[in-house]
Amino acid sequence: MVIECVPNVSEGRRPEIVAAMADTIRAIEGVRLLDYSSDASHNRSVLTLAGDAAGVERAVLALVERAVADIDLRTHRGEHPRMGAVDVVPFVPIEGVTMADCVALARKVGAEIARRFTVPVYLYEEASNNPARKNLEDIRRGEFEGLAAKMASEGWAPDFGPASPHPSAGATVVGARMPLIAYNINLATNRLDVAKKIAAAIRHSSGGYRFVKAMGIMLEERGIVQVSMNLTNYEKTPIFRVFETVKREAERYGVQVLESEIVGLVPSAALNAAAELYLQIEGFKADQVLENKLRNQQ
Amino acid sequence: MVIECVPNVSEGRRPEIVAAMADTIRAIEGVRLLDYSSDASHNRSVLTLAGDAAGVERAVLALVERAVADIDLRTHRGEHPRMGAVDVVPFVPIEGVTMADCVALARKVGAEIARRFTVPVYLYEEASNNPARKNLEDIRRGEFEGLAAKMASEGWAPDFGPASPHPSAGATVVGARMPLIAYNINLATNRLDVAKKIAAAIRHSSGGYRFVKAMGIMLEERGIVQVSMNLTNYEKTPIFRVFETVKREAERYGVQVLESEIVGLVPSAALNAAAELYLQIEGFKADQVLENKLRNQQ
Repeated sequence: MVIECVPNVSEGRRPEIVAAMADTIRAIEGVRLLDYSSDASHNRSVLTLAGDAAGVERAVLALVERAVADIDLRTHRGEHPRMGAVDVVPFVPIEGVTMADCVALARKVGAEIARRFTVPVYLYEEASNNPARKNLEDIRRGEFEGLAAKMASEGWAPDFGPASPHPSAGATVVGARMPLIAYNINLATNRLDVAKKIAAAIRHSSGGYRFVKAMGIMLEERGIVQVSMNLTNYEKTPIFRVFETVKREAERYGVQVLESEIVGLVPSAALNAAAELYLQIEGFKADQVLENKLRNQQ
Repeated sequence: MVIECVPNVSEGRRPEIVAAMADTIRAIEGVRLLDYSSDASHNRSVLTLAGDAAGVERAVLALVERAVADIDLRTHRGEHPRMGAVDVVPFVPIEGVTMADCVALARKVGAEIARRFTVPVYLYEEASNNPARKNLEDIRRGEFEGLAAKMASEGWAPDFGPASPHPSAGATVVGARMPLIAYNINLATNRLDVAKKIAAAIRHSSGGYRFVKAMGIMLEERGIVQVSMNLTNYEKTPIFRVFETVKREAERYGVQVLESEIVGLVPSAALNAAAELYLQIEGFKADQVLENKLRNQQ
């Protein structure tokens, strides 16, 4: 069983503090720290860990303990919106685990954060049953500075913990979501309007696919344009469908797809789905992938 | 580092002997037994193991020790050609390891088998520098019964070990090769001649792709035909190229591809290559696959 967890913490300017958080996670059994990076202008760090449910739970609780001790939002400044010392904790199903498992884990860990550290917790995305509290931006609006007033207003009692912010650590948003895929398609043109029209055609907010966020941008140094995307659920809105739609939309402007690119990590299943479609492979099972078989035998 | 090894042993009728071989491998550190299966009519078993170089080496040497003790080719009968108690030992690069590494390992293990058990060893496929001794069938021609005469003839001194067969265990063929992919394409027709013509067009032996073995067969129960293939080097002859060629050849007969299927295991990289082609993904690296990243952090 592999669950990924990507906690965002409100510290990106004191490397020694972030390094100590990373060490805390590395010392915990049943979980591995895959990556972490800090952004000084955001004053924020993103840690990527993976492990089984128990390991990931231990790691998150240990991380919250450190963050509550080391971070004081009353003096925190940065460009990125935030309302907690540990700002957001998404659990992501990777292998041998369902979304329902990750939702259950988010609720369990959320309750435990509230109980141990007296930090109010909001559930979001798949872990929330409240349509007004699925979207992270909606929950975080007003940020730490507006949190006390927001928590006192109608409909904003937290899911777990006290009805007012932790004095220095604010509130934490915990939830479950699918892995994000950062996917870009470059077009053989310098016409930014074409990229923007295609982005509008495929993104959810303007009538496109349910799990696509997209914008059209210029790659100045190459003199070409790009449809830059986040795919937020590759099972329900697969990469190949997005690619084929972009390609078809580009044709109407006499424009060709130059290439596409995946930025960062992609689950093996998302690529396999494309191979299965184009090669018309029927009846394929994930455990036919040699590497999965190897891993499952460990 | 993951090396797969698929030893074939000349015993498929005494399950307790084969199970003891499996247990021998399971007890060895640094290697896992992924699978094993026996064929009584062939009187032969195939074991699939994977691990690092040291683990795989230990496992193969332990297996040879048992096989030499338990198998006597003087009384062995079966449909499958064979010339050794452990008949053939291919090492297959899977991850974090090159073909050159597997060739080096084949030579090291081959020399050690000869030294410890006085079994002559022939190198084959990538591990052999002798064009007449690359192909397993060429080396094994004459089988155990003809081995003493063959070894005494011009050009058939073994690569390691004595110049005559082990009295009961014959000789062992050791080498390195790419993973095999068993890949079939079903056609929406009952015309066997079409499947046979396409198989002839794509297989190496009749002028097709270098690393394709193919035949056309009838799937009686479904009333359709199949191009049944082994892809012996998916890096040099990728799945997508074979698929596209079969599809194009089928068109000239007015026949459509119904579906394709992968039988058994396939390396993740072979599927990823198809996704990269069809999605026109540029600059993709294997460590962008989340599962590879996870594994490499262990």
